[in-house]
Amino acid sequence: MDISHIEHIGIAVKSIEEAKKYYEGVLGLKCYAIEKVVDQKVTTAFFKVGQTKIELLEPMEADSPVGKFIENKGEGIHHIAFCVNGVEKCLSDAELAGLRLIDKAPRKGAEGLSIAFLHPKSTFGVLTEFCEDKNK
Amino acid sequence: MDISHIEHIGIAVKSIEEAKKYYEGVLGLKCYAIEKVVDQKVTTAFFKVGQTKIELLEPMEADSPVGKFIENKGEGIHHIAFCVNGVEKCLSDAELAGLRLIDKAPRKGAEGLSIAFLHPKSTFGVLTEFCEDKNK
Repeated sequence: MDISHIEHIGIAVKSIEEAKKYYEGVLGLKCYAIEKVVDQKVTTAFFKVGQTKIELLEPMEADSPVGKFIENKGEGIHHIAFCVNGVEKCLSDAELAGLRLIDKAPRKGAEGLSIAFLHPKSTFGVLTEFCEDKNK
Repeated sequence: MDISHIEHIGIAVKSIEEAKKYYEGVLGLKCYAIEKVVDQKVTTAFFKVGQTKIELLEPMEADSPVGKFIENKGEGIHHIAFCVNGVEKCLSDAELAGLRLIDKAPRKGAEGLSIAFLHPKSTFGVLTEFCEDKNK
């Protein structure tokens, strides 16, 4: 697998507006984009920290993947996303290794990236995303 | 606050030996160090991914911070660590902003770094660490 760096860390929050007070006001990071991902029923807010982004995830409604995560586990770190070259090959390598795929094929995520998730049951509890920017 | 990048992401696992099969064997990352942090009763294993490290955390015994985390929440992402300049100032800024500090002053962590943690209750559910390499 060809992983270059950690593209982002996804963090589930109840309110981006509230959490921004901490990420901007205390840590001094800058929110450079807010984007809705309608098919996941989530609003995302991005902060750049060196090579990696922090992606805050606010559910649009309780009955959504991030809404259920917060209901079950509370606010907190939701997933790690690796920036990869060749997301399809990463998925087929993962499947060959016996991992459980949430996405059998890449789909479009925030910021126009091609993304796919591995199930945390097969990755030692870590919801894991592969991301590739096919527009580069 | 002067944050340069994400120094590492801490991930709690029951067995480094088992989890390494995934991080090395499937993801293709390389474990470059294993280190025991005796006062935290934890064994750590490090993998470099671009600018950031993945730090696997295996408890030496159930009655330890990481042991209790796994008992309560299962294996998974445990904390995020920011690389900072001036860890003492970051702590005093955080305290002034009303955040709850786990460490009032920096202490020595893995890889000889000066580290301090903020309590997840005041950081929207994310156990947050500041790290500084004072040997540089």
